[in-house]
Amino acid sequence: MIIQIEQFIKPKEKEIILSAINKIGYKTTEVKTQKGIYLVCIGKKEFDIRYIGSLDGVEDVHRVSEAYKLVSRKWKVNASEIDLGDGVKIGENNLTLMAGPCSIESEEQVEKIVSHLVENKVKIMRGGVFKPRSSPYAFRGMGLEGLKMFNRVCKKNGIKIITEVMQVSQIDDMIDYVDVFQIGARNSQNFNLLDALGKVDKPVLIKRGMSGTIDELLQSAEYIFSNGNEKLMLCERGIRTYETAYRNTFDINAIPILKEKTHLPIIADPSHGIGIREHVPMIALAAMMAGADGVIYEIHEKPEEAASDGQQTLNFDESKQLINRLNNNYLLK
Amino acid sequence: MIIQIEQFIKPKEKEIILSAINKIGYKTTEVKTQKGIYLVCIGKKEFDIRYIGSLDGVEDVHRVSEAYKLVSRKWKVNASEIDLGDGVKIGENNLTLMAGPCSIESEEQVEKIVSHLVENKVKIMRGGVFKPRSSPYAFRGMGLEGLKMFNRVCKKNGIKIITEVMQVSQIDDMIDYVDVFQIGARNSQNFNLLDALGKVDKPVLIKRGMSGTIDELLQSAEYIFSNGNEKLMLCERGIRTYETAYRNTFDINAIPILKEKTHLPIIADPSHGIGIREHVPMIALAAMMAGADGVIYEIHEKPEEAASDGQQTLNFDESKQLINRLNNNYLLK
Amino acid sequence: MIIQIEQFIKPKEKEIILSAINKIGYKTTEVKTQKGIYLVCIGKKEFDIRYIGSLDGVEDVHRVSEAYKLVSRKWKVNASEIDLGDGVKIGENNLTLMAGPCSIESEEQVEKIVSHLVENKVKIMRGGVFKPRSSPYAFRGMGLEGLKMFNRVCKKNGIKIITEVMQVSQIDDMIDYVDVFQIGARNSQNFNLLDALGKVDKPVLIKRGMSGTIDELLQSAEYIFSNGNEKLMLCERGIRTYETAYRNTFDINAIPILKEKTHLPIIADPSHGIGIREHVPMIALAAMMAGADGVIYEIHEKPEEAASDGQQTLNFDESKQLINRLNNNYLLK
Amino acid sequence: MIIQIEQFIKPKEKEIILSAINKIGYKTTEVKTQKGIYLVCIGKKEFDIRYIGSLDGVEDVHRVSEAYKLVSRKWKVNASEIDLGDGVKIGENNLTLMAGPCSIESEEQVEKIVSHLVENKVKIMRGGVFKPRSSPYAFRGMGLEGLKMFNRVCKKNGIKIITEVMQVSQIDDMIDYVDVFQIGARNSQNFNLLDALGKVDKPVLIKRGMSGTIDELLQSAEYIFSNGNEKLMLCERGIRTYETAYRNTFDINAIPILKEKTHLPIIADPSHGIGIREHVPMIALAAMMAGADGVIYEIHEKPEEAASDGQQTLNFDESKQLINRLNNNYLLK
Repeated sequence: MIIQIEQFIKPKEKEIILSAINKIGYKTTEVKTQKGIYLVCIGKKEFDIRYIGSLDGVEDVHRVSEAYKLVSRKWKVNASEIDLGDGVKIGENNLTLMAGPCSIESEEQVEKIVSHLVENKVKIMRGGVFKPRSSPYAFRGMGLEGLKMFNRVCKKNGIKIITEVMQVSQIDDMIDYVDVFQIGARNSQNFNLLDALGKVDKPVLIKRGMSGTIDELLQSAEYIFSNGNEKLMLCERGIRTYETAYRNTFDINAIPILKEKTHLPIIADPSHGIGIREHVPMIALAAMMAGADGVIYEIHEKPEEAASDGQQTLNFDESKQLINRLNNNYLLK
Repeated sequence: MIIQIEQFIKPKEKEIILSAINKIGYKTTEVKTQKGIYLVCIGKKEFDIRYIGSLDGVEDVHRVSEAYKLVSRKWKVNASEIDLGDGVKIGENNLTLMAGPCSIESEEQVEKIVSHLVENKVKIMRGGVFKPRSSPYAFRGMGLEGLKMFNRVCKKNGIKIITEVMQVSQIDDMIDYVDVFQIGARNSQNFNLLDALGKVDKPVLIKRGMSGTIDELLQSAEYIFSNGNEKLMLCERGIRTYETAYRNTFDINAIPILKEKTHLPIIADPSHGIGIREHVPMIALAAMMAGADGVIYEIHEKPEEAASDGQQTLNFDESKQLINRLNNNYLLK
Repeated sequence: MIIQIEQFIKPKEKEIILSAINKIGYKTTEVKTQKGIYLVCIGKKEFDIRYIGSLDGVEDVHRVSEAYKLVSRKWKVNASEIDLGDGVKIGENNLTLMAGPCSIESEEQVEKIVSHLVENKVKIMRGGVFKPRSSPYAFRGMGLEGLKMFNRVCKKNGIKIITEVMQVSQIDDMIDYVDVFQIGARNSQNFNLLDALGKVDKPVLIKRGMSGTIDELLQSAEYIFSNGNEKLMLCERGIRTYETAYRNTFDINAIPILKEKTHLPIIADPSHGIGIREHVPMIALAAMMAGADGVIYEIHEKPEEAASDGQQTLNFDESKQLINRLNNNYLLK
Repeated sequence: MIIQIEQFIKPKEKEIILSAINKIGYKTTEVKTQKGIYLVCIGKKEFDIRYIGSLDGVEDVHRVSEAYKLVSRKWKVNASEIDLGDGVKIGENNLTLMAGPCSIESEEQVEKIVSHLVENKVKIMRGGVFKPRSSPYAFRGMGLEGLKMFNRVCKKNGIKIITEVMQVSQIDDMIDYVDVFQIGARNSQNFNLLDALGKVDKPVLIKRGMSGTIDELLQSAEYIFSNGNEKLMLCERGIRTYETAYRNTFDINAIPILKEKTHLPIIADPSHGIGIREHVPMIALAAMMAGADGVIYEIHEKPEEAASDGQQTLNFDESKQLINRLNNNYLLK
């Protein structure tokens, strides 16, 4: 059960509500986010929920039987929208595009991509400065200095930034330079990182784990939300299967199912989802058609020369064409 | 290496070609289909293919290093088209829709569905009369008598029929009553059935195995083609993964990859691909957008009362709406 | 519910039993095998099973709620034993070994292997004459003539034969030359083949499908049993997963779980289960320790020269050593 | 290429070696662990490795083409042994057992388990105080205070401790109270945690990821080793597949393959590997037989009352019986 209570509830009213829940034998977690105060109550006894609804100070109350509660669409029927400022909003009312290189490599590289984005009206740039790599001997990204440069060039041009955070200790250093924190597939169940990102006021995009279930992804989001941050979006990026004809199996089914189960925006990552440059646009279009609220994909001036992931990266012409096709079909959909 | 030879090649010319291949040490399989005569030559030695090309009676010659040869797009760059007669053609030039119930249940049921199809300009009806069932105690379909009734109603209304054949001994009984034979997921590598279907002149749709690879699907098609039947199409219907939030994982990636690798038409089955009625349209639209040449899906007047698969079956309103959305977005694509 | 009725039940008694079941609203399938007569009754209504048990002519009655019934250990608590004659029995009272080449290649090859088996007291030889191959251009086995030769050499030396049957039409031709029919992984849900093998009196080993579930394997066995043949054994041979470091993922968990769920003997195939020669013995030993009633594995005088599967085939020395280790640890287990 | 150099190499000698590598165009990482100094050299050019071997100060040199280098058995042919002190050693010369509850719950619980371990000569106790849980609302363990109590009881009785560390900031707090740090499946590719554990002198057990490959597990070990800590062991704990008859698919194949690829000890976790109490012993025995150097499993005085994972936890009688069977068969193996 989730109870949303009034922002300026009187202490006496709150006490009465908590005592009523206590009597039913439910355990309560109080969650205060940027947008409201919620009581998440967990227990098994049957009772008449209307009684709770009738108490003073209660704005809304719902039963939610899933393992995830606050992120469930049973609780919040209307889709959430995340406002990045300057008119950039992520949600059901428009198609959000995010593009950029796998790794931030140089100021020149960022500038060229920013120009491409500005030209094509894309408002958000992706790009990694801390790179998770299977091998300890591989390039691990430009780090914090790279992020500051990335931020400088983007701000100058009105572009928002999404980039991956890999550990708790990076959050404070990064927070002033990013618009959206990204949690990578390998950290999708790094619960300490989730807890910590729940305590800051900055939007977070959570990627599904390598072979994470849809339910686990929703519970990871619940970690962040229940710590106080409800500016969340989820990202389908392909799962690990037996098929070897491509990099990951983009789980197109996950998109309508997530849209049904949660009010959070759903973003598709076709670049990791198939991993083959010439097929990325097909998967992007398919994902949009299946209900994705946005698409995040990799671009580079010269994909052949990219420091990482070049085989799944579009060049500017391919990107421009994709943007047009996405926008045209989105209107008709 | 594949050599296409002239239809009315002189014996002497053919002898010279075969002897040339023999000298290189390649093993040759001669394949005669409805459309041409091909020599599939397998071996490892390097040699100048232009020499073969220069021989009399050779129409075309190509190297194909994949395990599948005749179905490869490296050999035949232009997409194949399958003509069912009466103007019904399956291929890249139009979007083919096939709809119908999981199981043929009664004449009344077939008539209602046929009316819906005629009304919405769908030309092909699916429906099982031999049903593969995990349990020996489950309903196994109406059998041959059901097929004859199915055929009678459809022919009267100009509708073509696709239905599943489960074993070699059924082929002769069924052949006069079907327009397309379907090979089900569980028979995707039933090599004797593949061999036998290669010896008849009737189009075949091959479903990908439960957890078949893309490469295995292409090799199954090669079985049929190399036996002499090149009226083939392939069907993506979802694969088995660890995710339990839906029935199968529709492999959207398989569509652009199959379109790249083979000249055969690719059909999507969103009903089995996700297995949840309200999400079937999203997956159908996504598949079309990713490049599918057609969509096969399950409909029933009252899905709640269907003999099987009701949970993934659309009613007529939902079907009508899907057809409109598919056609509109197909035009724009 | 399964009711075992007396072999020489009076027609009147049977009528009373059937009428009693009919009144409860259950659907009955009568199954007559080599060992008994069973009524498999399927329905949903609750009722007192003791009433059925009290009727004349009823030997035993049990509830079985699983999708598989006759093969369930809930019904038949004692393990089944399959008698191949000449003292060769497969079941819980001894460890059955079956060894031989992937493909039968020549009389000389069979003779050498038979000598090795005789020397090491292995009573059953495996060897394929009809080979399912992904590619239509690969070697498909020596066929029926090969089987006759295989049989001749084995019979002379008191060795039993297990070999794969691929389609219904082969059963009659093969039946006099085999001691156990094997159903391959790709035919694990070839329901027509299962039906047909249920109608002959010859033991059958059913391999689990490429990515078949444990439950599907049991239901495939139910197909054969419910057609009248209860001389069955099941084979774990590895499943398809994302891991590429070996051929298949041998599902060691399946062994204790199958032993719990069914009374049928369980055989392990470590050769296909890992697919790497030097590790086959480890997996064989592990499987035996986990409860397998037998092991089937591939041997060849010169694995490097085998017509197929050489990379997972043991030579005679390796085989001898494995047999000793299996027997020693089996005694202690 | 890995070059092991002498512990007290002269600066001049080292300079010559580095300059030689530099000339070939290889990139070098210097790694100093508890046991030696290694130069990991990465590059593509072919050259005569004997020249490097002939330089002063070089103890050993090997080519290693895999993505993992220092943990490869190509480099270090003899198995590593980890000494926990007081005669407790983990490696190929004995079978290491580790047992304990999923979660540390109370002093009384720990005392009872410790008695069981002492009685049965098990030297290492497992038990979680920081618990990764899918849901933010579940019990997350007793934390640091629990660990101190756990340590107090164990030290009094000569028992070593293995427990999970979830984030970098916990390492310093925990290090004085643990004998082996465990990295859980969800953190198997938490590269920052791996880096940090490479900088302490304390043994680490790395669990394979939920659906991690064998190669990824070895690269995760490489992360720690290359940071300076070579007291490492790897743990197979089951992978995620489509099968739902049990919790995870214990990958028995991984054991002989890991033993071939790496010199590090391999530990099996049958409790998570199958997740069903009555089958845990079978999987433990199978894993030992397949070559595991140790077994870690869950026990509790009353599994039915355990705070977590009760369904896969043995009671003391079952544990005692398992220990006897493991030891008996280990001797014969």
